[in-house]
Amino acid sequence: MSSFKAIGIVVALFASSVSAQTFQRLGTCPTLGCILPPDQADFLAGQYFDIRLEVHAPKNGSEAIGLLPDEKFTFTIAKGDGAPKLVTEFLGVQESKLENWTFDWYEDLFAKDLKTPSIVDVRSKAYRRIALYEPGEYTATLNYNNGSSTKATWLVRDLVEERKAKNIILFIGDGMTTNMITAARLIGHKSINGKYQSKMQMDKFPVLGHQMTHSIDSFITDSANSASALYTGHKSTVNCLGVYADSSKSPFDDPKVETIAEIFHRLTGGHVGIVSTAFLADATPAGLTAHTRARSEYGAVVDSYLNGITNYTWTKWGGPDVLFGGGAEQFYSPALGGVTYQNKTYYDEFAKKGYRVLQNRTSLLAAPNNERALGVFSVSNMAKWLDRNVYRDNLNQSLSPAGDKKPALDQPGLKDMTLKAIDILSSRSGDKGWFLMSEAASIDKMMHVLDYDRALGELLELDDTIKAAVQKLNETDCLKETLVLVTADHGHGFDVMGSVDTRYLAAQNVDRKKRNAIGTYQNSGLSQYQNTGNLTYTDSNFPKNWDPRYTLFQGLMADPDHRENWSVHKDGPRKPAAELVNGSSDYYATSEDGKGGLLLNGTLPVNNDQGVHSLTDVPVFAMGPCQEKFGGVYNSVDIFFGMAECFGLARGTPPKKE
Amino acid sequence: MSSFKAIGIVVALFASSVSAQTFQRLGTCPTLGCILPPDQADFLAGQYFDIRLEVHAPKNGSEAIGLLPDEKFTFTIAKGDGAPKLVTEFLGVQESKLENWTFDWYEDLFAKDLKTPSIVDVRSKAYRRIALYEPGEYTATLNYNNGSSTKATWLVRDLVEERKAKNIILFIGDGMTTNMITAARLIGHKSINGKYQSKMQMDKFPVLGHQMTHSIDSFITDSANSASALYTGHKSTVNCLGVYADSSKSPFDDPKVETIAEIFHRLTGGHVGIVSTAFLADATPAGLTAHTRARSEYGAVVDSYLNGITNYTWTKWGGPDVLFGGGAEQFYSPALGGVTYQNKTYYDEFAKKGYRVLQNRTSLLAAPNNERALGVFSVSNMAKWLDRNVYRDNLNQSLSPAGDKKPALDQPGLKDMTLKAIDILSSRSGDKGWFLMSEAASIDKMMHVLDYDRALGELLELDDTIKAAVQKLNETDCLKETLVLVTADHGHGFDVMGSVDTRYLAAQNVDRKKRNAIGTYQNSGLSQYQNTGNLTYTDSNFPKNWDPRYTLFQGLMADPDHRENWSVHKDGPRKPAAELVNGSSDYYATSEDGKGGLLLNGTLPVNNDQGVHSLTDVPVFAMGPCQEKFGGVYNSVDIFFGMAECFGLARGTPPKKE
Repeated sequence: MSSFKAIGIVVALFASSVSAQTFQRLGTCPTLGCILPPDQADFLAGQYFDIRLEVHAPKNGSEAIGLLPDEKFTFTIAKGDGAPKLVTEFLGVQESKLENWTFDWYEDLFAKDLKTPSIVDVRSKAYRRIALYEPGEYTATLNYNNGSSTKATWLVRDLVEERKAKNIILFIGDGMTTNMITAARLIGHKSINGKYQSKMQMDKFPVLGHQMTHSIDSFITDSANSASALYTGHKSTVNCLGVYADSSKSPFDDPKVETIAEIFHRLTGGHVGIVSTAFLADATPAGLTAHTRARSEYGAVVDSYLNGITNYTWTKWGGPDVLFGGGAEQFYSPALGGVTYQNKTYYDEFAKKGYRVLQNRTSLLAAPNNERALGVFSVSNMAKWLDRNVYRDNLNQSLSPAGDKKPALDQPGLKDMTLKAIDILSSRSGDKGWFLMSEAASIDKMMHVLDYDRALGELLELDDTIKAAVQKLNETDCLKETLVLVTADHGHGFDVMGSVDTRYLAAQNVDRKKRNAIGTYQNSGLSQYQNTGNLTYTDSNFPKNWDPRYTLFQGLMADPDHRENWSVHKDGPRKPAAELVNGSSDYYATSEDGKGGLLLNGTLPVNNDQGVHSLTDVPVFAMGPCQEKFGGVYNSVDIFFGMAECFGLARGTPPKKE
Repeated sequence: MSSFKAIGIVVALFASSVSAQTFQRLGTCPTLGCILPPDQADFLAGQYFDIRLEVHAPKNGSEAIGLLPDEKFTFTIAKGDGAPKLVTEFLGVQESKLENWTFDWYEDLFAKDLKTPSIVDVRSKAYRRIALYEPGEYTATLNYNNGSSTKATWLVRDLVEERKAKNIILFIGDGMTTNMITAARLIGHKSINGKYQSKMQMDKFPVLGHQMTHSIDSFITDSANSASALYTGHKSTVNCLGVYADSSKSPFDDPKVETIAEIFHRLTGGHVGIVSTAFLADATPAGLTAHTRARSEYGAVVDSYLNGITNYTWTKWGGPDVLFGGGAEQFYSPALGGVTYQNKTYYDEFAKKGYRVLQNRTSLLAAPNNERALGVFSVSNMAKWLDRNVYRDNLNQSLSPAGDKKPALDQPGLKDMTLKAIDILSSRSGDKGWFLMSEAASIDKMMHVLDYDRALGELLELDDTIKAAVQKLNETDCLKETLVLVTADHGHGFDVMGSVDTRYLAAQNVDRKKRNAIGTYQNSGLSQYQNTGNLTYTDSNFPKNWDPRYTLFQGLMADPDHRENWSVHKDGPRKPAAELVNGSSDYYATSEDGKGGLLLNGTLPVNNDQGVHSLTDVPVFAMGPCQEKFGGVYNSVDIFFGMAECFGLARGTPPKKE
């Protein structure tokens, strides 16, 4: 016994010396025994989830302790101060079979340079589709290596079964920060002597909150993991959709957690709508129905919209009423170049299940409100507001959803899609109510490529969409029974620091002189995006001139090498850096981008051709039933619990049948 | 008549062609007739202010129209739909005498390079210390040039005379953004699997708001102008303290607006405290009593703390109960090198008026609570939390407040000063209540010099101060009658985008390879500021290790040339750039700063040796009576109106005597 005790101490020492950072053996598992969901997980009463247990036996590297992998580990759960019971007894489930695999990882960048991975032998079990119904604290314990143990405290949050909202709209401005909202307001709204003459719709919301976006095992998140946190109440790992990341190779066997869309549909029969300006298999829409370790499993994501999860027993899912966005390449026939799940043509799959398939704005607006609808309006991400409304020639850069290689010239915007989604959901859901997620995806995508004008255009379009949605709900007397939330999934380190005299900048020949074109403090002056120019749109509150002489001195701190002239990119979305040698993954500024501008050395690793996400808390704007739950500062997962509570989705007892 | 009409049109054309930006003739005056307070100004009923009228006659440049300056301009005010009356009649004031001056400005950067200023001849009048008592809209009209006119709409906000809070504490984190709070939380609070184990005190506040910080005539503000907006309800111009900027040469004749401290003291006899970690003549504390176009008039600022405004009739002011901070050079004798107003020794001036003068932490803590106190604890800005608590040798870089050139080794922190201020104010104010402004000034100062660690240390100290203040107020049962506000005056474009393996970075010889030390997304990993190290402090919730191997990949987008190694600066506050030739105002990165780091070309004009402020809305945290007024998104000036309303300071009728 004493020798094992000593080993325990050695393990602890090594564990702290391998201070998991750039690379991690398994993010949620600093010891050699892993429980998923891990310590600190919160659950909605009755929410389905899977359990994954792993025992790690490192074969080499700083954690190697010369032990064979333990195949006799045991797992117990205790409620409150109660006695721990074996998982099979506690949950009344069958014992599951032992799995084994190995994986490798690098302990740090030096090990990576030396190509010396650490190899880990794993023994594992999983228990699928279980739920906890009684609120309170649970202690889950994994006993392994004859005396070592890993404990996880789980909390089932208090029951609130009363439903307060009939409907919820969750608007997500992907990557949207307070800094960007401030900049968008500056270019989209007129100000006189420091007083704005019109307000953003977001600014009119009665309740403001901040949510913390970090991942479970890294402080910067991606959109998959952050969407999952918003939809499931469980933070996870970068690239994960609706699962905790295990260490196995398969992207489809990781332990799942049920999403707000799944629970709402399962318990109430409520209707679901999904709208995004991204390709539809992208992370933010995908997180509502997909469960995979790898957000890049696009085909499977699209299948999950229609069929739910098919490789394990899981929530029954009949498909959303509305699915609108881009990404036709996961829908059209492989014969046309489509890259689809099991080589199916998903236009046909959806049509077979009664969906009306829409491929342009005209048919979207004309579609009946009493039928389910799949709207796919372009290959890849949809065209940006700026290209649909100002630099319209750039629509020729987009591809039609039919897979015919023609341009997609008749694309709807987020507002068109969202208003139609509300019409269909309202028409079809009756008393059951609906849940709609509407995503302005390209705020993020345009920030990634440093195309600030397009990003702010998308943000203003999001605000215009929210305004129109609120107006529609108000006119149909549905506003008082609908919770409207506007938030983001993470930020980019963006801000505006002054103005740029682009005429002066272009007239200088030396970079150090070009920098004198920048006006800070009093020399930032006033926004010229409203005061000059004569662009007019059906929609109000957009710039009247996107190309004034004095532009915004704006940017990111984390970026690739690039040339910056702080002017609108008229020829379509920006490509700030390129490889000198194709395939080299070594990116440099090009002379085609940011002409006449200043050469800026990037800060990111040189294999980045675009910017990255940032840490900052992001804003939450709330209006409607339960709005008071969304004030102050909280964890991103609290958005899920707030919505679930407002829908009354907690359940203190198991369902009678399913 | 027709010729004047034609001229009017020409003026309008020229006015729009001079699209005031990098430089402006006069920010609030796009036409040739100027009214201050300008169009869109809001007033508290009964708030004192001055009126300044100017008629501009450009002698050359694009606005020159060959007219002599009009000396016969008239000025009328109308209430609502009422008939306009001459100002003397409307306000019952004496006609004031005509003033005249000229000034020059550059129309753009090309004109500046060519040294071709535009010269403007001015005729002007001012009316001093007036007030409007009746709520509603007023139209002020300046008639000039025989037919031209400038109109300003003024709004006196609705009367709320009922007092709801006995006390108000306004905490200002200078330059503090949501992004910085997120970063400070990451290094100061322990997190397990995505759940923080402790909360920032700010995060616990029940109400969250965002305020817009822009200046009246530029979208980026400085701390003078933004402090004035918070304290007076009037946005103004960069460098202005409690005045609108006119075009005259004197920094002391600009039209004033009364501050929250002045109104509160005048109307209720309430007591005032001022605490800052900056030099006391700095903008944020100064804005409470100073009224000048030039924040750099440090001597006059310090005199205003004690004597109020002395060059014009203004609010009677008896001095604050508490004035704590740095900046001894404006207090000690000119014989010792002090730079003081009228060469007085302000330690003596304050002592003469009954202030106990304190010069170190020991005497601060021992001071009686029933006496007014002046505490000046260092020359210039006070030492930073990191140098007072971790790298204590750097205290030798500071200078004692006695003017004896010795180091100031016994300096208090913001918490010591704030808690003592509350003790004194509570003890002395009786039923009258008190107003305290407490500023964490060096969040801003350290962000300016890219010293992120010190900035975040100051932010954590602010949070620790708020926590201690709330606890003290709670213990003395004063919390429920005290409105506690935490906000900032502007931002810096700061964020965190990942982590840096500083050991790997230092081991690489080439900048492009050093960039591989940066970990983004999943490779950002977890904060090591809590997990390693063994630093302990009396105060909790600070990093346990400021110098971990894996640091934050953090920074600003707008900066001077500098070398970045993303490591703590152990030798005292950072100096990121230096001149190659002294006095050249052409700054480059030095090899002494950021050793082993990556060379980053700045983006700011090369005469900047530090970063600049940014546009972003900043957060407002509110707790206590009237907290609900501070939710949502609003203009910075609304903070003044919220505080004034909570104190019940609006007055519908003139005071009987004064």
